[in-house]
Amino acid sequence: MIPIILIVALIAGALSIAIALVFARTVMKEEPGNEKMVEVSGYIESGAKTYIKVQFKILIIFVAGLSVVMLFLMQPGELSWAQMIAYIIGSAGSMFAGVLGMLVGVKANTRAAQGCTVGTKKGFDIAFYGGAVMGLMVVGVALIGVSLIYWITGRANIVLGFSFGASSIALFMKCGGGIYTKTADVGADLVGKAEYNLPEDDPRNPATIADNVGDNVGDIAGMGSDLFDSYVASIVAAMLLASTLTLISAPLGDLALNQNTQDILVIAPVVLCGGGLLASLLGIAFIKYKGSEEPGKALNTGTYLATVIFAGISALLISLMSIGLEVPAIQFLWRIYLASIVGLFSGIVIGFTSDYFTRDDRKPTMNIAKAAQEGHAVVILSGFAYGLLSVLPPTIGIVIAMILSYSLGGVFGVAMSAVGMLAIVGTIVSNDAFGPIVDNARGIAEQGNLGEDIIRTADRLDSAGNTAKAITKGFAIGAANLTVFALLFSFAEEANAINAGIISVVNLLDIKVLIGAFIGVIIPAIFSALLVLSVQKNAGKMVNEIRRQFEENPKILSGEEAADFNKCIDIATKGSLKELIIPSIISITVPLMIGILFGVAALGAFLGGAILSGFVFAIFMSNSGGAWDNAKKYIEDGNLGGKGTETHKAAITGDTVGDPFKDTSGPSINTLLVVMSLTSSIFIGLLMIFNGGLGLFAF
Amino acid sequence: MIPIILIVALIAGALSIAIALVFARTVMKEEPGNEKMVEVSGYIESGAKTYIKVQFKILIIFVAGLSVVMLFLMQPGELSWAQMIAYIIGSAGSMFAGVLGMLVGVKANTRAAQGCTVGTKKGFDIAFYGGAVMGLMVVGVALIGVSLIYWITGRANIVLGFSFGASSIALFMKCGGGIYTKTADVGADLVGKAEYNLPEDDPRNPATIADNVGDNVGDIAGMGSDLFDSYVASIVAAMLLASTLTLISAPLGDLALNQNTQDILVIAPVVLCGGGLLASLLGIAFIKYKGSEEPGKALNTGTYLATVIFAGISALLISLMSIGLEVPAIQFLWRIYLASIVGLFSGIVIGFTSDYFTRDDRKPTMNIAKAAQEGHAVVILSGFAYGLLSVLPPTIGIVIAMILSYSLGGVFGVAMSAVGMLAIVGTIVSNDAFGPIVDNARGIAEQGNLGEDIIRTADRLDSAGNTAKAITKGFAIGAANLTVFALLFSFAEEANAINAGIISVVNLLDIKVLIGAFIGVIIPAIFSALLVLSVQKNAGKMVNEIRRQFEENPKILSGEEAADFNKCIDIATKGSLKELIIPSIISITVPLMIGILFGVAALGAFLGGAILSGFVFAIFMSNSGGAWDNAKKYIEDGNLGGKGTETHKAAITGDTVGDPFKDTSGPSINTLLVVMSLTSSIFIGLLMIFNGGLGLFAF
Repeated sequence: MIPIILIVALIAGALSIAIALVFARTVMKEEPGNEKMVEVSGYIESGAKTYIKVQFKILIIFVAGLSVVMLFLMQPGELSWAQMIAYIIGSAGSMFAGVLGMLVGVKANTRAAQGCTVGTKKGFDIAFYGGAVMGLMVVGVALIGVSLIYWITGRANIVLGFSFGASSIALFMKCGGGIYTKTADVGADLVGKAEYNLPEDDPRNPATIADNVGDNVGDIAGMGSDLFDSYVASIVAAMLLASTLTLISAPLGDLALNQNTQDILVIAPVVLCGGGLLASLLGIAFIKYKGSEEPGKALNTGTYLATVIFAGISALLISLMSIGLEVPAIQFLWRIYLASIVGLFSGIVIGFTSDYFTRDDRKPTMNIAKAAQEGHAVVILSGFAYGLLSVLPPTIGIVIAMILSYSLGGVFGVAMSAVGMLAIVGTIVSNDAFGPIVDNARGIAEQGNLGEDIIRTADRLDSAGNTAKAITKGFAIGAANLTVFALLFSFAEEANAINAGIISVVNLLDIKVLIGAFIGVIIPAIFSALLVLSVQKNAGKMVNEIRRQFEENPKILSGEEAADFNKCIDIATKGSLKELIIPSIISITVPLMIGILFGVAALGAFLGGAILSGFVFAIFMSNSGGAWDNAKKYIEDGNLGGKGTETHKAAITGDTVGDPFKDTSGPSINTLLVVMSLTSSIFIGLLMIFNGGLGLFAF
Repeated sequence: MIPIILIVALIAGALSIAIALVFARTVMKEEPGNEKMVEVSGYIESGAKTYIKVQFKILIIFVAGLSVVMLFLMQPGELSWAQMIAYIIGSAGSMFAGVLGMLVGVKANTRAAQGCTVGTKKGFDIAFYGGAVMGLMVVGVALIGVSLIYWITGRANIVLGFSFGASSIALFMKCGGGIYTKTADVGADLVGKAEYNLPEDDPRNPATIADNVGDNVGDIAGMGSDLFDSYVASIVAAMLLASTLTLISAPLGDLALNQNTQDILVIAPVVLCGGGLLASLLGIAFIKYKGSEEPGKALNTGTYLATVIFAGISALLISLMSIGLEVPAIQFLWRIYLASIVGLFSGIVIGFTSDYFTRDDRKPTMNIAKAAQEGHAVVILSGFAYGLLSVLPPTIGIVIAMILSYSLGGVFGVAMSAVGMLAIVGTIVSNDAFGPIVDNARGIAEQGNLGEDIIRTADRLDSAGNTAKAITKGFAIGAANLTVFALLFSFAEEANAINAGIISVVNLLDIKVLIGAFIGVIIPAIFSALLVLSVQKNAGKMVNEIRRQFEENPKILSGEEAADFNKCIDIATKGSLKELIIPSIISITVPLMIGILFGVAALGAFLGGAILSGFVFAIFMSNSGGAWDNAKKYIEDGNLGGKGTETHKAAITGDTVGDPFKDTSGPSINTLLVVMSLTSSIFIGLLMIFNGGLGLFAF
């Protein structure tokens, strides 16, 4: 029987959506700014809508196709139908969350720019509400989806279908958006900044609008679907473990699950996430930015508040869930409570260390900026090396979180630490979406000729967005990593539930398992390479188009005639969607091939290898990209000679290399890992056909 | 009892050393060139000797210290004394091989340059003999060392001490040499080429001699110790497996080992390597370069010949070893014969695919060159992406080799495929050393004012060196990879021999094992980062010194006065040795810490993780570096605008970034992996103290 306390998640979800709608209305009521701003904003909106329309056509075909495949390839029966329907709902939810946030983002851009003319506080508030619409909507939809599906079906592996839908869409949104935004950004910079000395966001640059559209489809929509996906996946991983395990072994004491305990443990992750969402809502309510202090601090205060409130609310929820349970089960519940707190804190710690490696007042980024004095090559080497080094602190953070949460609650404890890390994701996404909104507000202020002062106000908000992003990114990476570990464990349990003991161990000394791990380890490298090449290829097309426009019509450069923005939007749209095909095929077919050829244990090792090397690549690429970006900004602030010097040019090279690292490949890897893990779990029935899960090479 | 056929290895080793001495005399008898060349060559020699002297002081302290540590920390008794002595012999052998090759290399440089004045054939022959001295000496010393130690002691794990000595010294030689050569090279390029438009090897550049010294200490001595180390390690891994296993399981049939069979199997790797060395000698004897054809082809012909001859000789040796054995054992011997041939062929295949990614007449490098047209950032992104993609083909090659060799002979078969890949290492090292010799010959020709024609002849030989290097590098990487896999298996068997079943599985689903793998995966990234930062730091010092000399004494730039070469040599020497400390501490302490904290199974996973991610980083860094280098050369050959254009400048940026990738970090990773694997095996007794091998965190 499903415990009634699950209703907490539904209430929190509904409340969250309601508040998001209120915020959306608040944003919409604001002034959109002068005629020019409305015009630019209109271009951005129409560009974003074009992209979404084309992408959705592809996505609908993909979802329909995969639904049919799922029906045919999974174990027949009710389960596959239900999973398929859940999959479609999850896909729809993910699309909805991404698009809605993006549309509000587009509306908030120009209004935040206009708000800056009133004052920093006004600009902050509009951008903050805009971001919160996205954050609260994503989390609300996810939580309602998960809890309703579980309430109706009572089976965690139907929720798995929902999660698979969310993730496969997130992969498209994330990679597609990432390629789009960097195609436009890199293309605009290469010609605009480097060849014609145009400033950022200059309206004469034909790729400017595409660049702005990219910020919305890449940073806002992509990030929304990404966290939607991690959030749901972390909940599902924990639910699956609770529903398949009959005994949870943990160093602090094992727990044999009776029906009662199992019923509670399966919903515990959902309920705690409900508590986390309530905590996020309270945190958001308490953020009062007065307009004088550092705006980044106001955002981080919201995060800290949500953390503390979560600790309180979830303690209350644990007490409620304890009612009617036996003492060992109650003790265990409190242990997983601690595991979730451990996860939350380690998210903050990981955020702080990422911050250290990318902040321009800390040694790594300053050294990278100094390296720019010795030329293009040295700034690259320096950023590359610091990016790799930055993998160490989060590794230590996650290892400690793993040791503690495993000691507390075994593999279920590890899954719960991922849930804890993502519990306050409402706050995280809100703060994260703040960044691209103010970034675009700055662009619109520039294009709407609002003047230097207003641009400086927008800049201040922009840098606040970056400060907040450092910590939220730590959460996103850490949580995704723990989530995929939890998915790996639940995959093994799923397999064992079908064919007892088929994955009793994933033994690296078994040659097939070793081969699985080997192939797994190279996948993130290949995947990153493909995405970087895609960006490079499309940016090249963009560069040619911009050059063509400038050469064929000199009036564009003199500002007398408007550039043809649509051509650039078209290049970014078509290019990014075309380049998606290979990465998405990899994410689904490679795990299946490994499972079919070498068996499910090798597939476990494949996932393990991919998770570990994916972690290295994700952090390295995100952090070197971030550090190069900030090193460039540090120089642009007048240090080491400032703008226009050779040092600055070298720093721009670093930033341009870092662009696809930090905004395309790096963040897409997490989603890739989740999709591969879920693919393995979803199609586990298929894999069992081949020598009972031992694979075709059954030696 | 030790079968008498082991004598084949001793004879081959002795013959190899004798021929090396003859070649050395041949080289020494050649004309060293004009006064200026002798002078320059003298500078290089004295610079190289200075470096070696300082390094040897450090190494002797290191070896002495580690010997004492070994005695205290290993199981007491005869074994530890014998291992310690073997360790000292191995260290001495590795130092000797590296230094001797380097000294002959230095002598051959100027003589090959002078030879080019006679004709391409003369230049080729001198460089070829010079390289062969190194190749034959390395292999001869290694083979005699291994077979004598085994003959005297009869215990494979005493040979392990020899291998540990070879590897720990190789790590110093490889990293130190790698940092040295790139400190000088990058420093010289950054100021000389970029700021003062001096050509490569211009005698006015104060870092020119340091750069030439670097080619000798990095490329020749470092590479010599590196292959000495892989060669010995591959033999030892196979010997250890044969001596600890009582039953070899393989898909094509298991083999229970009786004393007779075991005696033969333990020496089989040594005997086959003896056959490989004879094949190399014959291959070298058959190389007749006429002076008209492409010189690179002559080198590769030697490799192919050695491969074919090896197949024949080793069949003969297998027949001889079969005498007196039972039928299943004989069948098994033939299966491991096939496994060694599989290894050899996959080495060639890996070489060819690396070649594809780095040759300037193939798509990847040409695309990278084209990317340079779009600026510094795009050429970096392109090379980065292709480097990552290039990991795929060798992975497939090794996976196939693993499947085949495992099917043939189980884990012992995998070890034998590594042995097979390295069997003709005499040819490989000879061809590989040819490269830096002609590279330096070119430099000396430039500094000795031998004129454009002679420089062009030297250039032709240089490009032949690169052609040969593509294939030899494939061998080096593939063999190192299979070797460390074999070491991983033998480490597990060693552990089980002490405490039965302690590593029955290395189960990734066990949290401690997963943590071990996690930390293992990040180690190559951290290690690469440290080496790149070292190069960057020292190159920065070098840049300042060069600028200082040019500014303080304008007569250096006008060519009236000689630059102060010694200051630059001093910077490279001190810098490279200082920067070695942290990487070498990592390589020994981290595996021990993992073993002590989390137990030997976690250590196995640590090694597995490090091997896999190390493979990705080694190939990615070597190949992107190679491709950038060749993309630059492609442009310098007059394509895409040729020298002096913006495209060329961007390509130079790529080349400079690639320098520490391909010559410092990339190739050092293999040695790191071997050292970490051997450390784990050597100190396994120590690790067993902590909860019987379960580690301090024994949950």
